[in-house]
Amino acid sequence: MSYDTAITIFSPDGHLFQVEYAMEAVRKGRCAVGVQGVDCIVLAVERKAAAKLQDTRTVKKIHVLDEGIALAFAGLTADARVLCDKARVECQSFRLTMEDPPSAEYIARHIARTQQEYTQKGGVRPYGVSTLVVGFGRAGEPKLFMTEPSGSFSAWKAQAIGKNSKNVVEFLEKNYQENQSMDQTLKLAIKGLLEVVESGSRNIEVAVMQRAGLQLLEDENVQKLIQEIESEA
Amino acid sequence: MSYDTAITIFSPDGHLFQVEYAMEAVRKGRCAVGVQGVDCIVLAVERKAAAKLQDTRTVKKIHVLDEGIALAFAGLTADARVLCDKARVECQSFRLTMEDPPSAEYIARHIARTQQEYTQKGGVRPYGVSTLVVGFGRAGEPKLFMTEPSGSFSAWKAQAIGKNSKNVVEFLEKNYQENQSMDQTLKLAIKGLLEVVESGSRNIEVAVMQRAGLQLLEDENVQKLIQEIESEA
Amino acid sequence: MSYDTAITIFSPDGHLFQVEYAMEAVRKGRCAVGVQGVDCIVLAVERKAAAKLQDTRTVKKIHVLDEGIALAFAGLTADARVLCDKARVECQSFRLTMEDPPSAEYIARHIARTQQEYTQKGGVRPYGVSTLVVGFGRAGEPKLFMTEPSGSFSAWKAQAIGKNSKNVVEFLEKNYQENQSMDQTLKLAIKGLLEVVESGSRNIEVAVMQRAGLQLLEDENVQKLIQEIESEA
Amino acid sequence: MSYDTAITIFSPDGHLFQVEYAMEAVRKGRCAVGVQGVDCIVLAVERKAAAKLQDTRTVKKIHVLDEGIALAFAGLTADARVLCDKARVECQSFRLTMEDPPSAEYIARHIARTQQEYTQKGGVRPYGVSTLVVGFGRAGEPKLFMTEPSGSFSAWKAQAIGKNSKNVVEFLEKNYQENQSMDQTLKLAIKGLLEVVESGSRNIEVAVMQRAGLQLLEDENVQKLIQEIESEA
Amino acid sequence: MSYDTAITIFSPDGHLFQVEYAMEAVRKGRCAVGVQGVDCIVLAVERKAAAKLQDTRTVKKIHVLDEGIALAFAGLTADARVLCDKARVECQSFRLTMEDPPSAEYIARHIARTQQEYTQKGGVRPYGVSTLVVGFGRAGEPKLFMTEPSGSFSAWKAQAIGKNSKNVVEFLEKNYQENQSMDQTLKLAIKGLLEVVESGSRNIEVAVMQRAGLQLLEDENVQKLIQEIESEA
Amino acid sequence: MSYDTAITIFSPDGHLFQVEYAMEAVRKGRCAVGVQGVDCIVLAVERKAAAKLQDTRTVKKIHVLDEGIALAFAGLTADARVLCDKARVECQSFRLTMEDPPSAEYIARHIARTQQEYTQKGGVRPYGVSTLVVGFGRAGEPKLFMTEPSGSFSAWKAQAIGKNSKNVVEFLEKNYQENQSMDQTLKLAIKGLLEVVESGSRNIEVAVMQRAGLQLLEDENVQKLIQEIESEA
Amino acid sequence: MSYDTAITIFSPDGHLFQVEYAMEAVRKGRCAVGVQGVDCIVLAVERKAAAKLQDTRTVKKIHVLDEGIALAFAGLTADARVLCDKARVECQSFRLTMEDPPSAEYIARHIARTQQEYTQKGGVRPYGVSTLVVGFGRAGEPKLFMTEPSGSFSAWKAQAIGKNSKNVVEFLEKNYQENQSMDQTLKLAIKGLLEVVESGSRNIEVAVMQRAGLQLLEDENVQKLIQEIESEA
Repeated sequence: MSYDTAITIFSPDGHLFQVEYAMEAVRKGRCAVGVQGVDCIVLAVERKAAAKLQDTRTVKKIHVLDEGIALAFAGLTADARVLCDKARVECQSFRLTMEDPPSAEYIARHIARTQQEYTQKGGVRPYGVSTLVVGFGRAGEPKLFMTEPSGSFSAWKAQAIGKNSKNVVEFLEKNYQENQSMDQTLKLAIKGLLEVVESGSRNIEVAVMQRAGLQLLEDENVQKLIQEIESEA
Repeated sequence: MSYDTAITIFSPDGHLFQVEYAMEAVRKGRCAVGVQGVDCIVLAVERKAAAKLQDTRTVKKIHVLDEGIALAFAGLTADARVLCDKARVECQSFRLTMEDPPSAEYIARHIARTQQEYTQKGGVRPYGVSTLVVGFGRAGEPKLFMTEPSGSFSAWKAQAIGKNSKNVVEFLEKNYQENQSMDQTLKLAIKGLLEVVESGSRNIEVAVMQRAGLQLLEDENVQKLIQEIESEA
Repeated sequence: MSYDTAITIFSPDGHLFQVEYAMEAVRKGRCAVGVQGVDCIVLAVERKAAAKLQDTRTVKKIHVLDEGIALAFAGLTADARVLCDKARVECQSFRLTMEDPPSAEYIARHIARTQQEYTQKGGVRPYGVSTLVVGFGRAGEPKLFMTEPSGSFSAWKAQAIGKNSKNVVEFLEKNYQENQSMDQTLKLAIKGLLEVVESGSRNIEVAVMQRAGLQLLEDENVQKLIQEIESEA
Repeated sequence: MSYDTAITIFSPDGHLFQVEYAMEAVRKGRCAVGVQGVDCIVLAVERKAAAKLQDTRTVKKIHVLDEGIALAFAGLTADARVLCDKARVECQSFRLTMEDPPSAEYIARHIARTQQEYTQKGGVRPYGVSTLVVGFGRAGEPKLFMTEPSGSFSAWKAQAIGKNSKNVVEFLEKNYQENQSMDQTLKLAIKGLLEVVESGSRNIEVAVMQRAGLQLLEDENVQKLIQEIESEA
Repeated sequence: MSYDTAITIFSPDGHLFQVEYAMEAVRKGRCAVGVQGVDCIVLAVERKAAAKLQDTRTVKKIHVLDEGIALAFAGLTADARVLCDKARVECQSFRLTMEDPPSAEYIARHIARTQQEYTQKGGVRPYGVSTLVVGFGRAGEPKLFMTEPSGSFSAWKAQAIGKNSKNVVEFLEKNYQENQSMDQTLKLAIKGLLEVVESGSRNIEVAVMQRAGLQLLEDENVQKLIQEIESEA
Repeated sequence: MSYDTAITIFSPDGHLFQVEYAMEAVRKGRCAVGVQGVDCIVLAVERKAAAKLQDTRTVKKIHVLDEGIALAFAGLTADARVLCDKARVECQSFRLTMEDPPSAEYIARHIARTQQEYTQKGGVRPYGVSTLVVGFGRAGEPKLFMTEPSGSFSAWKAQAIGKNSKNVVEFLEKNYQENQSMDQTLKLAIKGLLEVVESGSRNIEVAVMQRAGLQLLEDENVQKLIQEIESEA
Repeated sequence: MSYDTAITIFSPDGHLFQVEYAMEAVRKGRCAVGVQGVDCIVLAVERKAAAKLQDTRTVKKIHVLDEGIALAFAGLTADARVLCDKARVECQSFRLTMEDPPSAEYIARHIARTQQEYTQKGGVRPYGVSTLVVGFGRAGEPKLFMTEPSGSFSAWKAQAIGKNSKNVVEFLEKNYQENQSMDQTLKLAIKGLLEVVESGSRNIEVAVMQRAGLQLLEDENVQKLIQEIESEA
């Protein structure tokens, strides 16, 4: 227990407990799914059941970081917002010095590096957040990255984070196909999420990143897609 | 218990205890209610029974942050005042650099970011305050935001914070209607608060934010409204 | 108990123990009373029984902060002196930048903000002092403010701080009248204090703030007033 | 016990333990006495029995801070020397900016403020020293101030600090008379100190502050005075 | 147990526990092997079984630091990435000031120095990473260096780090020959790794550093080599 | 026990334990003696039995700080060397700004101030060293000062520090005479030291400070003096 | 046990535990021997049994600091490397400002001062290293210095540090002769080391510092010398 005081330090068997506890905060967070298609990436996120009177836009868990770069997260909302703000500043700063937009990979690495830093310095705690960062590569190919509280960073064709994400990952591994069309990609992401979402469509947020930019689906369109998925089943 | 020393750190199951204890301070604070109308937002706040000789203005829990932006809070009064002062400085600074007033959303996000920062840095404690921030959007539409000790941030049509706020929220969810007139909005906010206030009208503070600015209701007008509400019942 | 180490942090039920312990230091301090009259404010303070050979001026608990602004306190004398010094610096600084004297409210808020800061930063403890700040408003109306170790701030017609101040407050609430003359105000403040002072007149310090400035009453005048009060009774 | 770690913090009943423990160090220190006369102030100090071979000048406990300002202390010698050095720097600095010598009151307040600061900041401990500061007021009247580890500050006609100082104070209260001549003042101070000094005259240091400056009495003169006092008795 | 709090300090028998615990994190990391040939160095690394949908490039454990310098690691991935980034910055900085590329030894020493620093300063923890750094010496000869969490640094003809690396080292000691051809070197490195890898070829990453630069082998080529090795056996 | 963590703080009865423990380190250090003569000061120091192969110059415990100022110490050797280095820098700095050499008293006070500082700041420990500083006053008179871990400072005709120094002091008090010749002074210092040194002459270091500068006695001369002393006895 | 937290502080009996524990790390380190000859100094060091495939140059424990200055160490390798780097920077810096090479004594003192500093400042731990520094004096005479974790510094004709160094020192004391030739010096150093080395010659590193510079002996030459020694026996 006493390993947790003061700074993030090693336990005798080589674990960083604060990082693992932060990962626990991620595991408690609602699930987020990312799936690459042939020319798009879809993010589907379970969101907190918005209270009846809540403006649903402010529970959104998909954030635009820069033209062509977006992020979904699982874990502590306030931590995520702060990470997004830092990433946005980095995007602007990159544009100013490079006179070019940053790539999704550059920004995902930047986020991961920020997260790692908070596991090694004294006087701070790790971020209680995992992220999925989407965008396009230099050749215009779709890209999906994941970062975690430890500062780890990886690229995926499809991935899920947060509560019960293991089940979603198993589903994606069974059903993912190369070069899916946008429609296939959308349905796969939503189907994946429905594996772990209990209470119907209202709390699902879906966005499609295309070369033209990020498009957030209207709730009614999400509903229609769910109905199509259920009628197909 | 020992998770609380030195800085705000994670417990083994991913909680930030200091943040939850600060939330407890909010839950002990008197209730504040915010309700959007078609072209106004009403804030109604239970305030500390002013001692007989107290200047009631200094127990007020509704603060103007900038022309067109106001804040109500629940929790530690001194913490709230400091947060307000910081927000006011940000307003002035925004005006100076942007030559434009800040939006309510900008300032609410600023407050939330400040609150998050105090949950992650060493050597400080979280703010023991939740806030309701009101104002207008770019298109002149009324806006109501809530921030919490964790640094979370959200937008609402109607919301309540502080002691027994759950009961008020349930009441608001049952009775809120879109496009309410100012009078309807006022009565809804006051009715909501009366659900949890024990001792009559004296300790209720009501303000209406309209495009023309914030208007604090005189105590006698609040009284009249309460009588109307009670006679209607 | 362990909540008290290192910095001022929350207990599980949302309390800031160091602030409450500092409040305890205030409750142990000798009582100070402030009462507004129609065009003056009276401060009456029980002071430490000056040793026979002590220069009574240096046990004084009423301090001039600026022309037209004065302060009485209960709690740790040395802490109070430091707070006064900071407030005086702020007064001078305000005059230099604004080319105008500060209002009593501005300075009382400044003191409260300083006190709050010492409850939230690491490496310091709260001030063990409550204050009564008196002066005049923009329209020349008398003003009485109270600040506390938590950094709370409030305005009053009459108020008492320190040992047994509850009894004084009850007395003031029963006997305070609007628009009292200077003589009535003086007597009310002294009567209030006599409710809790045991050993006669010597240890009472009385000052009247009028638009012309602060006037400290001579001990013999205080004596006379006490005799008048006692003969009236 | 745990209240003492890290910084000087409040105990649940509002005490600052480190300050009280520092006061204990003062109570263990040899006694120092100050007495005002009509146009002088006398300091009489019990000093550590100088070892046979010690240069008695370096056990002296009466220090000149500036022309016309001197200090005697009880408590930790090294702490006192550091406080004196800081006060001397302040004297020089005052002279440079004001082109005038500082008053004894200004310097005594400066010492007290320094002492208070060390009770409130983290990473330091309070000074284990009480001081008697002597000098003259603006009108040339003699002045005697006392400061304590808490940072408290007060003015006196006669006062004693250190071991058994209570007995000395009682003696002074019984025997002090207004407008004493220098000879009367000298004898009163020495008589007071003899109340608590066990082993004869050798360890008594006496100085007289007059408008012309501080005069340290030769040991033989102190002896003569003691003989006069004893023969008078 | 209490030796672990605050900073990395000595235990009574002269151990630095935090460093040993970090070494434990290395021992839990997947195995990495480095072998020198006559004009090349081969790195072979077991990598995390890439999930089915993972972009295998982002689980890679062999990183180019500069033209002609590469690094493989065992231990915490995020820590390793940060060390690599620091090393890359040093490479660029060296090139700028020296107008020459740095040698592999210079960079390996730089990494080791960084690691040592994190075992001696307060407020940080050691890096949970061992590294194998490869490149060429001034005379064009192949070079292989190892660094560890303690900051230790050493040069090798062949070496392994991470889980079960002891077995690999024993194998290498038996089978290493001077002046091996590239093909022999490749097979030795892979054979060594196969001693401790359980589940077939998919998770093995192989790179050859030659004077022309680093070449990462395609998975199919790694497969072919494994088949050749197995058919040879 | 817990008084010792973090910084040097007061115990409930007003002690600074870390300072007393540092004094213990001094009491464990070999004895050093200083004696004033009519125009010289002699330092005699027991030194660590130099190992057979040790260069005796580097066990020397008498250090020249400046032309005409030297220092002997008891306690931790490494701490002493650092204090000497600081004192030497101060000497040089004094000479540069004052265009005059510093007096021995100025430097002894500087050393004491440095030692006091390390008893009051957090994050450091006291110096485990007492010193004897010798030199000449403004009128060319010999001077001998002692400083201690607490930062205390005093002047002496003869003094001893370190192991069993009490016995030496008693001897000096019995045998010291005013205006001793250099020869008498030398013999008194050595006789004093021989009171507590067990194993003959080899480990005694003797130096004479005269107006012309410091002269370290050759071992053979020390031997001769011891023989003279013993034959005189 | 609790003396070890936070910073290096005194125990009640005047010990610095962290320094003693660091000394324990030195005592666990392999033995290093230094012996002065008439015009050379020999360093002989037991080194870690180089693994079969290790480049023996990187286990070397004898480091050149500057032309004519070399260092051998016992204790933590990584700590030693950092100390060497710091010493090398000091050498370069000395050359730049002085336009002259530093002496071995200057650098040995610099290393000792650095080591002392790490025993007194908070937030760091002592270096777990003892060193033997060799070079020449102003008159060209050979010099051998030892530094320890406490920061102590001494000069020797012959000395040993590390595991079982006591036995080596006894051997050296019996067999050291003044003005030994280089051959005698070499053999004495190796013989001394062989007293404590178990497993033959492979792990012995020998270097001779002559005015012309440091010469590291080839392993075969070391072997020959050992055979000569053994045949002589």
